[in-house]
Amino acid sequence: MRSEIGVGIIGTGFMGKAHAFAYRSVASYFPESAMPVLQVVADVNEAAAEAAKAQFGFRRATTDWRDLVADPAVAIVSITAPNVLHREIALAAAAAGKHIHCEKPLAPDATAARAMADAAAAAGVVTQAGFNYLQNPLIRLARDMIAAGELGEITSFRGIHAEDYMADPQAPWTWRLDPAGGGGVIADLGSHIIAMARFLLGGITHVNADLETAIASRPIAPGAAERRNVEVDDIARLTLRFARGCGGHVEANWVATGRKMHLAFEVAGSKGSLVFTQERLNELQFYRVGDDPRHAGFVRIEAGPQHAPYGRFCVAPGHQLGFNDLKVIEVAAFLQAIAGQAQGSGEAIGPDFREAWEIQKVIDTAIRSSASRSWQAVS
Amino acid sequence: MRSEIGVGIIGTGFMGKAHAFAYRSVASYFPESAMPVLQVVADVNEAAAEAAKAQFGFRRATTDWRDLVADPAVAIVSITAPNVLHREIALAAAAAGKHIHCEKPLAPDATAARAMADAAAAAGVVTQAGFNYLQNPLIRLARDMIAAGELGEITSFRGIHAEDYMADPQAPWTWRLDPAGGGGVIADLGSHIIAMARFLLGGITHVNADLETAIASRPIAPGAAERRNVEVDDIARLTLRFARGCGGHVEANWVATGRKMHLAFEVAGSKGSLVFTQERLNELQFYRVGDDPRHAGFVRIEAGPQHAPYGRFCVAPGHQLGFNDLKVIEVAAFLQAIAGQAQGSGEAIGPDFREAWEIQKVIDTAIRSSASRSWQAVS
Amino acid sequence: MRSEIGVGIIGTGFMGKAHAFAYRSVASYFPESAMPVLQVVADVNEAAAEAAKAQFGFRRATTDWRDLVADPAVAIVSITAPNVLHREIALAAAAAGKHIHCEKPLAPDATAARAMADAAAAAGVVTQAGFNYLQNPLIRLARDMIAAGELGEITSFRGIHAEDYMADPQAPWTWRLDPAGGGGVIADLGSHIIAMARFLLGGITHVNADLETAIASRPIAPGAAERRNVEVDDIARLTLRFARGCGGHVEANWVATGRKMHLAFEVAGSKGSLVFTQERLNELQFYRVGDDPRHAGFVRIEAGPQHAPYGRFCVAPGHQLGFNDLKVIEVAAFLQAIAGQAQGSGEAIGPDFREAWEIQKVIDTAIRSSASRSWQAVS
Amino acid sequence: MRSEIGVGIIGTGFMGKAHAFAYRSVASYFPESAMPVLQVVADVNEAAAEAAKAQFGFRRATTDWRDLVADPAVAIVSITAPNVLHREIALAAAAAGKHIHCEKPLAPDATAARAMADAAAAAGVVTQAGFNYLQNPLIRLARDMIAAGELGEITSFRGIHAEDYMADPQAPWTWRLDPAGGGGVIADLGSHIIAMARFLLGGITHVNADLETAIASRPIAPGAAERRNVEVDDIARLTLRFARGCGGHVEANWVATGRKMHLAFEVAGSKGSLVFTQERLNELQFYRVGDDPRHAGFVRIEAGPQHAPYGRFCVAPGHQLGFNDLKVIEVAAFLQAIAGQAQGSGEAIGPDFREAWEIQKVIDTAIRSSASRSWQAVS
Repeated sequence: MRSEIGVGIIGTGFMGKAHAFAYRSVASYFPESAMPVLQVVADVNEAAAEAAKAQFGFRRATTDWRDLVADPAVAIVSITAPNVLHREIALAAAAAGKHIHCEKPLAPDATAARAMADAAAAAGVVTQAGFNYLQNPLIRLARDMIAAGELGEITSFRGIHAEDYMADPQAPWTWRLDPAGGGGVIADLGSHIIAMARFLLGGITHVNADLETAIASRPIAPGAAERRNVEVDDIARLTLRFARGCGGHVEANWVATGRKMHLAFEVAGSKGSLVFTQERLNELQFYRVGDDPRHAGFVRIEAGPQHAPYGRFCVAPGHQLGFNDLKVIEVAAFLQAIAGQAQGSGEAIGPDFREAWEIQKVIDTAIRSSASRSWQAVS
Repeated sequence: MRSEIGVGIIGTGFMGKAHAFAYRSVASYFPESAMPVLQVVADVNEAAAEAAKAQFGFRRATTDWRDLVADPAVAIVSITAPNVLHREIALAAAAAGKHIHCEKPLAPDATAARAMADAAAAAGVVTQAGFNYLQNPLIRLARDMIAAGELGEITSFRGIHAEDYMADPQAPWTWRLDPAGGGGVIADLGSHIIAMARFLLGGITHVNADLETAIASRPIAPGAAERRNVEVDDIARLTLRFARGCGGHVEANWVATGRKMHLAFEVAGSKGSLVFTQERLNELQFYRVGDDPRHAGFVRIEAGPQHAPYGRFCVAPGHQLGFNDLKVIEVAAFLQAIAGQAQGSGEAIGPDFREAWEIQKVIDTAIRSSASRSWQAVS
Repeated sequence: MRSEIGVGIIGTGFMGKAHAFAYRSVASYFPESAMPVLQVVADVNEAAAEAAKAQFGFRRATTDWRDLVADPAVAIVSITAPNVLHREIALAAAAAGKHIHCEKPLAPDATAARAMADAAAAAGVVTQAGFNYLQNPLIRLARDMIAAGELGEITSFRGIHAEDYMADPQAPWTWRLDPAGGGGVIADLGSHIIAMARFLLGGITHVNADLETAIASRPIAPGAAERRNVEVDDIARLTLRFARGCGGHVEANWVATGRKMHLAFEVAGSKGSLVFTQERLNELQFYRVGDDPRHAGFVRIEAGPQHAPYGRFCVAPGHQLGFNDLKVIEVAAFLQAIAGQAQGSGEAIGPDFREAWEIQKVIDTAIRSSASRSWQAVS
Repeated sequence: MRSEIGVGIIGTGFMGKAHAFAYRSVASYFPESAMPVLQVVADVNEAAAEAAKAQFGFRRATTDWRDLVADPAVAIVSITAPNVLHREIALAAAAAGKHIHCEKPLAPDATAARAMADAAAAAGVVTQAGFNYLQNPLIRLARDMIAAGELGEITSFRGIHAEDYMADPQAPWTWRLDPAGGGGVIADLGSHIIAMARFLLGGITHVNADLETAIASRPIAPGAAERRNVEVDDIARLTLRFARGCGGHVEANWVATGRKMHLAFEVAGSKGSLVFTQERLNELQFYRVGDDPRHAGFVRIEAGPQHAPYGRFCVAPGHQLGFNDLKVIEVAAFLQAIAGQAQGSGEAIGPDFREAWEIQKVIDTAIRSSASRSWQAVS
């Protein structure tokens, strides 16, 4: 008989829904996992909470996340509330002995992130931060290839996460612009590409960053004449040094007109290189030194069953995973970590709170570097 | 209270699983639909049936599809068994008053397809054939643009469905090669691109086809020395005339080395043209006559919430749907048709049995044309 | 001391200029070739002839091609006049002992083409037909790979040459639409893709064609109200059988809205496949069976010095050849053939009149097939 | 009667040849220009000089550039010698009243560049630096669109010039690695992308750079066991501030495994954005805010006659220019500047020595910034 595990989700927006989709689907694709049961959904907006309850079949809805955390039927707490609330919720959940998934960025700053990681460790609960793009089988392939030395000695990383959802100067002020929540784009999108850089290449030791606000003020609400000054960054450019010895560059940009999902990187080594963009998430370009020069070039690898866990979703190559499938893989990894299971190569995929704290340190260092106009060691 | 509807799935292979995934997920994305409940799964292989029961949570498993069809808890019968069985199952299901989804191609020939369509019509049940690629929001956009005259008068259609899963001469004989099941690639892949051509441009009146067997014999089983002659086609090339007056060409090819999911088309008209490949299913290329010539060119449209029902899956553009999401949309359309609901523009999307019969006529005509080495009217 | 060779060019339009460019440049890139000296240019339009003389530095201009052919300083006659004139000019040039380059298609029909080939053979002069796209180093690579068996046994060819320069219904009647000049698009663009098919795969034995006129009438002149009926084809679709045993399909289309230079093909074999489009003429896609499945995929080969004669133009890879460079390579091959030199692999590249006659036979067969609505043997 | 102008070229390597090709071809494409006559070629290697004389038809060859500069038949001096010699040659040429084209980077440092610019100004001669990628008609389109406000207010520039010709650790030491010649990749490739940034967006005011040597030592000669330490940069990463208010980033990298000609940029503004890579030099991607959201996306603009001076080379769109064509356009602009003619929009295209000095300042500032690990004002 298959075991069940109770889930509570805090927040019902983009990510709250994505989590609910994933928890409802995961058992089909990963039948060896525990069966998640949607127990409680929380949203400060009661109508939204009730709607989510109806849509996804939660047992109950609440407007109080504390109520959710306290519910004994809830074993997993999924935090998709605004960043500024992550710490308080996570600490409460850890204290209640719940396993915790928290959306990225983990916290407004590294101090908070560390507190969350420490609390979870002390409580002995399993944690996961929502860097779902790392769950792509092709990203896992990339990491494995780099780790196995297939690219030789790495010389350079260049990454970007660019979208345009804040490019319109009339796009109103949102909680993402609240400086109490940490940075602007460096936290929201920068955390993704920093997570990617670390996932592929390991530790970042030094940062030299230039953060800028491209749109100085925003309407306080959609259509409002009154505007509020923006105090966080719209564009972040980071020059990096990695612990392994190479350098790199990442950009985060949410005013990148025309870009919808341009999370992209190129990593070059002495024996090969890889090129990727999330715009075509089922493709990875690979160049290998030493091929017959008549035939040499970048190979367009298409995702297929040979790239686990793609085969869970489709037995045929080239049929393509979607964004929500990445969330399913993320949830599966979390459930397997909770069950003490190894996935694939013997380790759970994706950052836990300790790794998310490391990512947060890079973000904090970038903010510090930009403010001081100087190189800063990551700390 | 949300209504429930019982589902039985016959077959547990690639498509059987894809259906089960979709039925388990659809309620999250289309909460207004009835809630499917997986009641019975049937497979001649008992172990496979039991495994599917465990994986997806069917109430029970059986090795006898008649048992499934007879189960009063089953309101929907999903047929993913080999083509040669479609007719018999569908007729039984219709007689039992079940709504029927049947994988493509609908039947071994148009006579069988017609019998299936007629039986369903007589029984008053809702039908759907599994041409899931038509469920892509961008394909729906393409159809709407053509219908609205945005491409002007259509002059040409060129389509292909090429994969390479039969390209290896050592790939063994399978039921897909059984001539009793209809054609070879013309039925298996050709049906998809013919369905696409009709979906976009309407009726096909004449066909001139060349079907060929590229690999004359296959091992009778994996690794077997003994070989069996192949009597069906590996490559099909069809020249077409459409009722609307234009011509076209389609190819179906399952020995197209390197191609994994090359279902592609280009349709040109006096005011514009569209280019698509399922290899990048979230993109559609559009050229519009009359743009500033300095800027003119093919636009790469990325799927987003403006292309319903993409927004059901993700509120942000560019995040991408996957193959299984198309199956969810298909199932949703089916459930809505059963409920008498309109989806989106006021009509259920995707071929029913009557349309699948029309598609089958084109296949039959192609086989007849190739055998007679002559143009044939579709009939 | 470098030898010189006198050149006469008949016609000063697109191709006349392209030839002149090439003859002026070739000596830089192929210094071992004879040095072409532009002696005479002929155009029925005197102003055009004089302008070309001034632009390119011809010794003299004339309105009479016979005058050009008779000039003893002219050793090479380049024919870029309308198709309907090719035969008469070529026969005169052969009779005068001139080497002859003639733009494609070689003649209005195979009878004329044969007469030209025979006359040149009888006169012992060197001939070349202007299928310049075959001069691309990557096309030569493709042919060499196929000939060397790197793709294994070929199963299929699919080719197209689509442009949109006749897509506008208000585009006026031109000599290209004169049925006395042979076919419409089947001759103008179809000849290119047929030449490509033969260059890569060898002889074509049977054709089943559908030629259609998409725009029934055209203004007799730019802006004219009076229209003239179009008697030639705008779109040609050919199903082919090759002497080597495989089948194929080609399309020629000059009303392909949005396409500017879509001369493209995909050739698949048991060991690999190649994909090419002239839209990106410096790239060739190659898939090879047997690569590590984790890494397998289409390689994007970029042209470089390893693909002779690219290195004549640039010592660095990836810098790209342009259209006019292909014409230079064509001229160089012609000059080398005249000098009795071998180029590269030991044979002159590109069709001579005999090969162009073979191409013309396929065109004639396609016209005959379409008119008779039946398969026709090439003859 | 067409005027003639005598040309002397110093250096016979990659760029020396490219100049000779261009001077020999330009008169065909730009017949209104003066006719260049190749008078003298100089190379310290006598055999190379003689070979170039024979290949291109120079009147004479010399091993002494001073001899070339002094020749009264030479009106234009083209400098393609190693960077460390640029200043001395240019000063001599200016003193002799010659017009001067000099390959990029202009000089080993800004002081030398300024001396060259000042000397030329004092002598009243016309100058041009060889930033040939700016001659691309699509780059000119990009600049014109930005200048006309079609992208709105620019928010960001991201550029790169990456190749892999130094990626092999066994690639031997060359003069490009001589620190006396200025920087390494920052000078060789960085100058191109900096030139591009300035060409499109104007002045750069501040730089924060990280220059690194990826391969610490190189064989002193091909195959040599003895190695020499590398003192210049292999990778340069620059964060920029532009005078117009926006920021940006550029990378120069000659160890970018797999990249052959990846000179690429993305520039985003409030109304649109442009994406380009020299890997596909005949294409420019354009996104425009405000298009119908169903159809919005990046347009792939293909170069055509509507993008002057493409039409000089080919009357048909999509046929593509090559690298050597860009050099022809460059030479034409130089000849027109010498003749006091306006090209197209009324100004000569491409950097003169004064602009090249500005580019050199950015390079020097980057070197200074990297050495000091700090932001530096450009000076």
